[in-house]
Parts: sequence; structure tokens; C-alpha cells
Amino acid sequence: MRIAIDAMGGDFAPDEIIKGALESIEKLDKGDTLILVGPVETIKAKLGAKNLSKYADVLKIVDASEVIGMDESPIDALRKKRKSSISVMVKLAADGEADAVISAGNTGACVAGCQMRMRNIEGVNRPGIAVVFPTFEGPVTMCDVGANISCKPINFYQYAIMASMYSESLLGIKNPRVGIMSIGEEEAKGNEIVKKARELIKSDPKINFIGNIEGSDIFKGKCDVAICDGFVGNVVLKLTEGLVDGLFKIIKHEVKQQSFLLAMGFKSVMMKMYQKYDYHEYGGALLLGVNGTSVICHGSSKARTISNAIMAAKKFHSMGTNEKIKEYLAKSNIRGTDE
Amino acid sequence: MRIAIDAMGGDFAPDEIIKGALESIEKLDKGDTLILVGPVETIKAKLGAKNLSKYADVLKIVDASEVIGMDESPIDALRKKRKSSISVMVKLAADGEADAVISAGNTGACVAGCQMRMRNIEGVNRPGIAVVFPTFEGPVTMCDVGANISCKPINFYQYAIMASMYSESLLGIKNPRVGIMSIGEEEAKGNEIVKKARELIKSDPKINFIGNIEGSDIFKGKCDVAICDGFVGNVVLKLTEGLVDGLFKIIKHEVKQQSFLLAMGFKSVMMKMYQKYDYHEYGGALLLGVNGTSVICHGSSKARTISNAIMAAKKFHSMGTNEKIKEYLAKSNIRGTDE
Repeated sequence: MRIAIDAMGGDFAPDEIIKGALESIEKLDKGDTLILVGPVETIKAKLGAKNLSKYADVLKIVDASEVIGMDESPIDALRKKRKSSISVMVKLAADGEADAVISAGNTGACVAGCQMRMRNIEGVNRPGIAVVFPTFEGPVTMCDVGANISCKPINFYQYAIMASMYSESLLGIKNPRVGIMSIGEEEAKGNEIVKKARELIKSDPKINFIGNIEGSDIFKGKCDVAICDGFVGNVVLKLTEGLVDGLFKIIKHEVKQQSFLLAMGFKSVMMKMYQKYDYHEYGGALLLGVNGTSVICHGSSKARTISNAIMAAKKFHSMGTNEKIKEYLAKSNIRGTDE
Repeated sequence: MRIAIDAMGGDFAPDEIIKGALESIEKLDKGDTLILVGPVETIKAKLGAKNLSKYADVLKIVDASEVIGMDESPIDALRKKRKSSISVMVKLAADGEADAVISAGNTGACVAGCQMRMRNIEGVNRPGIAVVFPTFEGPVTMCDVGANISCKPINFYQYAIMASMYSESLLGIKNPRVGIMSIGEEEAKGNEIVKKARELIKSDPKINFIGNIEGSDIFKGKCDVAICDGFVGNVVLKLTEGLVDGLFKIIKHEVKQQSFLLAMGFKSVMMKMYQKYDYHEYGGALLLGVNGTSVICHGSSKARTISNAIMAAKKFHSMGTNEKIKEYLAKSNIRGTDE
């Protein structure tokens, strides 16, 4: 398998990206190659002569002289910076020279680049980003968290299918329970698009649909898959990050005030929790619905995230998830009218 | 001041509601009255002969023989159950017989009832529910969290004004910083309505507008007021509840596994945090924009929440927040075209 990695994407690029790629090498299968995309000289210098010769069979470098900044407008940047690492990376996938792409760079540019170049899986109207929330009751897959901020009912329906398949093949959850994010459990609750989407999902008996879920249900073990539009999903994702950070800040402050011993004891608890529930473990979010494997990593990704993202890409690819999605949609009589 | 309380609303009604009303009595001002709305005989029995005679000057009972269930469709229920505690309560306010209403019952019915009966403040197109998030960096007021799930730009603009005034008069925050919930800090981010709303808010220099905020910013001390539509706000509110519960579940589990001593130490930290950051302290959410004072309490409200809600109603009323909103909107040249 050939995995193209945006060496210049993210707050800690290129150092942590290259470090992550190196760390993953021992876990790769024979014949796998990692394609680092970015300015050749920079990447070579960061890798060092020793690694370059040692991993000559595994590591390839493809030149990309430009970088899309984290705050640049995605579409503009893609149009203007043809030689950016993201543009070059998605072109490799589009040309059949890479099976997977990974970037911790500008999310919007990465999503738009994948959509434009790699195209969608046959039958898919719009791709969606799926993230996994590690909860006390088990992992919950949420889709979409930012690819598509004005969703049509058909998009929700396809997210339900794609995220279910992701949950089943990647997380091993049989017949995952799918909920749609709304503002109350009752059928009458929700805006017009959510109501229409619910009817569409309900009309497909193969989806294990449990109906409306509320924000709190994600952490209560009520569902395995949560479907929403990219605006709501992105708010949820970032709120979760901010709230967890904020809460730990409060706890640390209070624990310290109580006693030094308690603070020490709690520190080790936090380390354990961090290991068990850290979302970095999942290596990033899958862009579901594009022809190929695309892993979108957090801007703050460090080496371990990138290494895990490489493993996630391998797993997604090897499970043939895209083929399953294509097959499912070919048989479904619910077509995308985009209304 | 005359405060009408829905004695039958909430998971622990009528016991906890009546208990909360009794607990608040010593904090009331001379001349204040509490009007308990519900079945007279039930309320009398719960109060007991001693309280009835002791507080004869303060406590009044207004009969309402029906109750709107938590899951009933708000509009249907209001139409059919004219004698429900919510219907009777809002009628008291509409008829000028109560200055404030408080309910922990069906939120939708309470919002709809207030809107229909009490009407909006002159110049306000749609009311919005404002809740206060207690964060490490200080309280953040979010509006709307569920009154209005399909917001127009003018609604966002008015929420910015009303929530700012709430933050200033109730929480004592001078010139509060207002952010609009979106999916990235850059101007280009967000859906069409959010973009239009941003332009409208920006056009009023009296609002201390900081532009887009992300979900994580609420807990980072970046803003004092967060504006969003009721769908997003409701998801955020419930997610926060669920995530905090879920996280404490995880921490408790890990702490227990570590050592008994640590668990004991952490328990006292949790108690402190609970006191400091408990949202029950705020007593509920204000429905901003209606003619009068309306406090909407959580369905799981216990006596303390109700007692705090009574204090919140008194404070909101005494600060003349509604008059300030009316005055502000009368001077503003940004009118509600509802488009």
C-alpha cells in the first residue's frame, strides 16, 4: 500500500510529521511505501542521511514547493498553489500513485482537494468527515464534523450508511445503533431538514436507526453512530475538546489547592485516562465518501498521531470499506435528489 | 414583586418545587409574593397547615387542574389544556397579575406559552433562551439554546443585544465581548445565515463584537456572550451536561482503581467544584425578549434550583433589563425584516 503524507501540514510540521512517519515504519507490511510530500531538500535534511539510506525502500519523497497556510481560504489556496503539498498529495491519489492520503494541514483545503481530485465513491453525493469519540460506554462515531455545513436529507442518509460501515469494520461494532443529532427525543423535534432526513433513514430497514439523539446521549452509551450536519458536528467536536481541557484545568487547580499528595495521585490517574481515552489514538478523522482513503488529522498532531493515522489508513484500506459503501448504495433505491 | 411558579413542572414536581419556594421565602423582600400554580388541594396538602398559616401573606395558590407532560407537543398541549399549570401561569403574567413566571416543566410549552400570552418586548422579533455556563475563566452567557431553531440574521443580532444586557446587568460584566458560534475564526467560515448575521452585528458599533468563535472558545475565556441558533445552542447545552457527567464517571472509575485514599480526597474536590461551577446556582435560563420575566428551569430541578430561580427572577426584574432592551432597540436603526 502506498500512503502519501503531507509533510508540511499542521502546527508541528514538518518535524513531527516526519518523526511520525519514521515511527510507523516498523508497523508497516512488506511492500508498503510512505510518500512524504513537501520541499525535497527540507524533507531530506529532516530525515537525515542515515534514515534516507536505511529506509530507501519504504520512504519516497515527492516534491511540493508550496504550503497552504492553516487560515487560507481552501478553494482560493488550491487554485493558486498548484505546487502545495496538499495539491500534490491529492493529485498522487487521483493519478493512482497513492492509495491513501494523510494531512494535518488546512482541513478545508484537504477536504476540497480530495473531493475535487479523488472524486466521490459512485452513489455518494457528498463526503463527510467521521471522528471517533472515545467514551466511557465505548467509541461513538460522529459524521459529519465539518466537510458539509449545509446538508441535504440525502447527505444525512448516506452519512448514516458510511459511518455505520466505518463503525462496523474499523471499530468492530456489529450492527451499530445510529442516532440523528436533534434537540429532543420526540419525533416532532428538530428542524425541517433533520425531520426529512429522519424519514429517509427510517425508510431503509437495513440501518439500525434509533431516531433522535440529544447532545448528552453521545456520552451515555445510547448510540454507536451519531449523524449531523458539518456545522453542528464541528461545534460539537471543538466544544468537546475545549470542555475537556477546561474541566481538567479546574480539577488540577482544585486538586492542587487540596494537597500535594492528592495532586500527585491525580496526575497518574490523568495519565491513565489520557492513554485510554485519548483521541490521538484514532490517528485522525476519515473523510468518508471519497474514492480512496483520506485521513484528516488535527492541526496540533504530533508524531504519535501521524503514526496512528498511517495505521488507520492501512486498516480502512484493507477492510475494503469503500467497496462495501459502493455496493450498498448501488442496491439502495434511495437516490440522491439533493433536495 | 409577584412571582408565579409552575408547581407541577419538572421531574420532581410538586415536592421539590414547593420545597424550593419555601426555601426562598426568607430571601424575599417585603411585599413580595409567590404564586404557586397547580391543583389547589395537592399544593395545600404538600405545604401543610403550618406553612399555610405562617406564610399566608407571602404564598398564594392559583388553581390549575391540568398538567402538560414533559414529552407533549407544546402547541397542541397549550391548545388543549387551557387549565394546565403552564397555561394558567402565563395567563397571570399576561393579565398583569404576576411580574415573573418560573417553570421546570415542558420547555417548549413554556416558551410558546410565554410568547403567545406575554408577547414580545417592542422591537424584538423572537425571544431566545439564555443560559450561563460557569467556566474556569468566568461565566459565559449563551443565547439561544432552544427557543428558536431556525434563526434569521435579525434574531442573532437581537440575541447579541439582549444577551449582552443580561451579562452586564445580571453578571456584572462591563461591555461584554460577544462572539457568534461558527466553525472557524476566519470571516469566510460559517453558513450563509451566520455570515449575514455577522455583518448585521458588525454594523452596530455599540456591540462589543469579536466575530466568529468556535466550540472550544466558550471555555477559553475568549468571550462573555456566545450567540447561536437554538438548534446549535441546545446541542451545546446538552452535550456539555452529558460530557461533564461522562468525564466524571471516567475519573471516578480511574481514581477508585488507583486507591481508596485518592478516591476520598477526590470526592471532596468534586464537592468543591460542584459548589463553584454548578449551573444550578444560576437557577435556570432566562427567556429573553418577552414582556416580563420568565425563568425556564431544567426538568431535573430540585428545591435549590427553584429557590435560585426565584432570586434570578427578582434580580432580572429589578435591574429593569427589559426596559433597557426596549430602549436600545427603539434607537437602533437595524430593523427586523425577518429575512
